[in-house]
Parts: sequence; structure tokens; C-alpha cells
Amino acid sequence: MPEDINRRWTLAARPVGFPKPSDFRLDEQPIPEPGHGQVLVATKWMSLDPYMRGRMNEATAASYTPGVEIGQPMQGTVVGEVLQSNYDGLAVGDMVEAGLGWQEYGVIDGATVRKIDPEAAPISTALGVLGMPGLTAYFGLFEVGRPVAGDTVVVSAASGAVGAVVGQLAKNAGCRVIGIAGTQEKVDYVVDELGFDAGINYKTEDVSGRLTELCPDGVNVYWDNVGGEISDAVIEQIAVKGRAVVCGLISQYNADPPPQAPRIAARMLLTRQARMEGFLVFQFAHRYDEGRVRLARWVSDGSLKYRENVVEGFENAPAAFIGLQSGANFGKLLVKVG
Amino acid sequence: MPEDINRRWTLAARPVGFPKPSDFRLDEQPIPEPGHGQVLVATKWMSLDPYMRGRMNEATAASYTPGVEIGQPMQGTVVGEVLQSNYDGLAVGDMVEAGLGWQEYGVIDGATVRKIDPEAAPISTALGVLGMPGLTAYFGLFEVGRPVAGDTVVVSAASGAVGAVVGQLAKNAGCRVIGIAGTQEKVDYVVDELGFDAGINYKTEDVSGRLTELCPDGVNVYWDNVGGEISDAVIEQIAVKGRAVVCGLISQYNADPPPQAPRIAARMLLTRQARMEGFLVFQFAHRYDEGRVRLARWVSDGSLKYRENVVEGFENAPAAFIGLQSGANFGKLLVKVG
Repeated sequence: MPEDINRRWTLAARPVGFPKPSDFRLDEQPIPEPGHGQVLVATKWMSLDPYMRGRMNEATAASYTPGVEIGQPMQGTVVGEVLQSNYDGLAVGDMVEAGLGWQEYGVIDGATVRKIDPEAAPISTALGVLGMPGLTAYFGLFEVGRPVAGDTVVVSAASGAVGAVVGQLAKNAGCRVIGIAGTQEKVDYVVDELGFDAGINYKTEDVSGRLTELCPDGVNVYWDNVGGEISDAVIEQIAVKGRAVVCGLISQYNADPPPQAPRIAARMLLTRQARMEGFLVFQFAHRYDEGRVRLARWVSDGSLKYRENVVEGFENAPAAFIGLQSGANFGKLLVKVG
Repeated sequence: MPEDINRRWTLAARPVGFPKPSDFRLDEQPIPEPGHGQVLVATKWMSLDPYMRGRMNEATAASYTPGVEIGQPMQGTVVGEVLQSNYDGLAVGDMVEAGLGWQEYGVIDGATVRKIDPEAAPISTALGVLGMPGLTAYFGLFEVGRPVAGDTVVVSAASGAVGAVVGQLAKNAGCRVIGIAGTQEKVDYVVDELGFDAGINYKTEDVSGRLTELCPDGVNVYWDNVGGEISDAVIEQIAVKGRAVVCGLISQYNADPPPQAPRIAARMLLTRQARMEGFLVFQFAHRYDEGRVRLARWVSDGSLKYRENVVEGFENAPAAFIGLQSGANFGKLLVKVG
């Protein structure tokens, strides 16, 4: 019977360039039994995030995690329900955020799992605005970008899970916010729904020219989700003492071999006395509770909006993930399971 | 008679790529008379510095100064003697540091001039270890690079006016210091004379391979004087939370058009949670006295050594400056005038 079966999406092959369906394999395993201190979790919502592309590669000296082995489930975080518990802190029926990977069921050490209050907010938000993407935006913006009221903040992938939060937080902190996105619908959304001051459609508009119009005093904070030519265009207009926060490089993850580009950043950093800094949200792990409390408050008072792009059905995860590589999603990409 | 004549090196043409002798023109003017509040200064030592290359270009949006107009003297700082004074704070015979540009004599507002004590140190050091290069090293290293004892610090153009100071200050602050330079003589100098832990000759050695050997835990601070491929190699080995201080890009100033290169920096900054930051020494102008006092103390107690590359004769300035573009100098490049 199906209830006995755990479906998993495993890594079938390491992608060369863009991932393709055959890089993933759906396998079926018996539902595992939790051991001592473990819980069995049934996935309800599965998160699809840009960082997962890096986990599909062979680990290199530059990798910050070993990544996924061929034949092993894709890594990732889910929200699910505890079906069995051998862990004191969790009971059957609890909703949890857990690093199960791409599977319908999984056992995991109870101590690594975070219990969610389903009354406080929709449980799916634990993967988005109140989860890793929201925390990434909160800590990256305030601790790395350090915006000051009156700053001009430019956000790429502005309607995405992280970008939308960054822009709203910056706006609420008194900044002028310009969003860059790849469809007019997304641009309209960040301006009309999220309150950004302006938007740029990088597929139809001249990004450099529009930035010159919109940022006459330069860009104080650039939130970089994409890398590549869009980032070159923004960094060419970085303000004196500006800050480019490198959060993601979605335009580069599938570039094989790495593209050649003119050397722009170092020159701009020098002449503008500017800073470019990468970060990983994990470096703020000791402060996640602080971030979640604030994000939840802003969501509940309406000053932080979010949008989810829900894909129904576990079997559709790879296609949705492939679409994410080129911005086919609109908002936080989630797979609704079961 | 020659004493009436002021020779000046003016900008004859904006260089395309490397500057060439015909980009400079020696002209002769009457020695000017100081006006109200001004002094007449006779140049004794003239500084030649990499930043001057940028001043020869047409000003662009990226420029931090308007640069030199065609037909006007090259900009720069000299040490000279006050021959006439209409400024209360300066007397005939005083030695001063002054922004006269490339000329044998000049009038300048007394308020913009800094008086030097010739008893405290050789007056030429006001253009090097106790001047702009030394202050650049001091503030850039401690305020931007922020080394911690035990850090591995890599310095490019290590035997140059700035690099040599950076490496010694880092060493005295408890860091391991690796210098990169372009001749074996320079490499030997930074190791044997200045006390660096190791050196790499980028013209004869595999920089990446040597860095891997010498920096097994990665590069905590990279002092970038050069840009280009050397910097790529270092940044590929940046440590977690490492800092790349962009002080200069001598390998790039004469590249026309700007070279294409693989996109390395953003990816490394992201995965290593690292920072790349440019600065200009002017941002620390309010603290120059602090810097000079410390540098002077270290020079006098022998913990900060310096080397000057003295070119005799005002007429030889352009050739020396052209050589500076490709590292022909060895130590702080100075023209001894008169």
C-alpha cells in the first residue's frame, strides 16, 4: 500500500550547466523507522531554493558543504508532521521544520528539528518569509548591507523569496528601494504590492540607463541575488562607501565554463571606496530567534508581505526546481506534498 | 639665467594603454610670484606614484578627482624648500610637503602645505614611509583589512612603497606575511630584509600553487596593489571571513580595453563569506597625524624599514614613471630635483 512507500528525489547525475530532468531520479524506499532520539516526519511542504544547485556539484575547495552524493536524496528543508517520536521534545502531530531533503517521509534526530506553532502563521511560511529566506534577508541586509535611512537600495531578483523581504525591510527602514526583476508582472508586484519606489525589467529595459535615472546619487546598498551582467551594471553605479551584499549568483550557477567578463568590480570598489561582501545565513544561526520574532511581528502587522509559488505534487519538484534557475517562479517556490 | 626658469612636466596627450614619452611635455615658465597667503617652493624631491596614471585619463563618472588637463602640469606631491613666504606659518628655508605637481618651482597656498622637521627623519620620507604611501598602508591595513594576530596576510607589489609597509606592519601585529613581487631580488628583500615569512615571484613561480603551499588555512587578509590575475589567484584562496583590501590595480591601469576575465571574486566572496573593499587614503585625512606619529616611531625604533629608488634629475621623471607601470622601480620611487 502507498502508505508504506517513501518516495525520494535523488541526484542521478551531476548537472553540466542547467539541470535537466534526467539529473534527478525518483526512487521508492520503505518508510524508515525512527531510532533512538529520532522522529519520523511526513513532508507537507518542501522548499526549493537556489542554493540547492550548488549542492548538486562535486565538492570543491570553494564549497561550503560537501553537497549531495550521486544516488542520495537532494538536500533541503521541509515542513512536516511528526508521525512517530522517540524524542522527548516532540509529540505525534507536531508540525516541524526539518532538513529531510527531497522525500515524502524521513527520520531525523529530534534535536535538529524546530517545532512550529501552526496557530501563529501558515506553516509554509517556516520555509519562506519566516524561514531561511526571511532570515537571510534580515541578517544580510542589516548586518552586511547596513542601510541608513535615506540610502538608495537596489535589489535584484526583487520578487523572489529573499529579494521581496530585503526590499520591504529596507523600505521600512527609510530607504529608497529599486527592484530588478525579469517580468513586468514581477516589477509591478514589487512596486504596487510591496511598496518599492521603482522597478526595472531587466529583460526589456536598459538596466544601466534606468539606474542612472533612478539613482542619481548612486547606489548605497546593492543586494545581489543574481551576479553577472545585472550586477556589473549596478556596481558601476555604486555610491561612495556603497555596499554590495553578495547573497546569491543565480545567473552564474549554471554557467559552465564560467563566463568571461570585463573587470569592473575591483575598479569600482577602489574609486568609490566601496565594499562587496558575501555571507551565508548560517553565520547568524545563533541569532535566528531574534530574526524570526521580528519577521513574524512585521508579517502580522502587515508591514511585510509575502507571496508563495505553490507547486502541487511531490513528483513535480525537479521541473519546478529547473524553472527556478531561470526565474520561472514568482515568489517563494514551494512544493505541496501529499 | 636658469634660476629664473621653472621647468614643468605637463600632460601632452592622454595615454592609450601604457604612457609613452610623448604623452609628457617639458615646458619652461617664469618662476611665479607668491600671492597673498602663498609661498614659493623649490622642489627637492618629487614623488612618483601609481595613482598618477589615473589622473592622466579623461575624468569619468568613476573618477574621484577631475585629473590633469592637457597642457597642465602633472599632479603630485613634492618636498621642497620655501624660497618666499607670504604666509604667517612658514618662513624662508622651511622644508614642506606640498602638492606642487611635477615642477621645479611652484606657488601654493601656505595653508595647504605641511611643514616638515628635517631633524626628525630624512625629508624624502615625507613622500614615502612617513607620507601618503605609509599612511595608506597604516589606515588601509588596520581600518579596512583589520588583521588579527595569527592571520595570514598576502601582499602584492610587496617591495613597493605601500606593500613594504603593509607587510611589516602586519608582521609586527603578529601575522604571517607572504609577499608577491616580480623579481627574485625583490622577493629576497622582503623576506631577508623586511622579515616577511615567505615570498612569491609571480614572474617565475606558479602563484596559485605556491599560495596553496604557503597558506594552508587560506588567506585572511589580501592586500591588493595590482589587480588582475595575481589577485584572482589570491582571492581563490581567501579564507572564510577573509578580507581583500583593494588599494591599487597597477596591472589594470594601462589595460585598454579592460581585459576580460573569469568571474571569480563574487563566487569566492559568497562561499567564503568574505569581504572585498576599496579605500582611498583621503578618507582618513582627519587622522593623518595619528598615523604619522606611529609610523615615525616605528621607523626610529627600527621595526619599520624603507627603501627608496632615487632617480636623479627632474628631466628623468617621465621615464621613471613609465617604468613604475611595470614594476621597474624597487622601493619608493622618487625624483631628486636640483
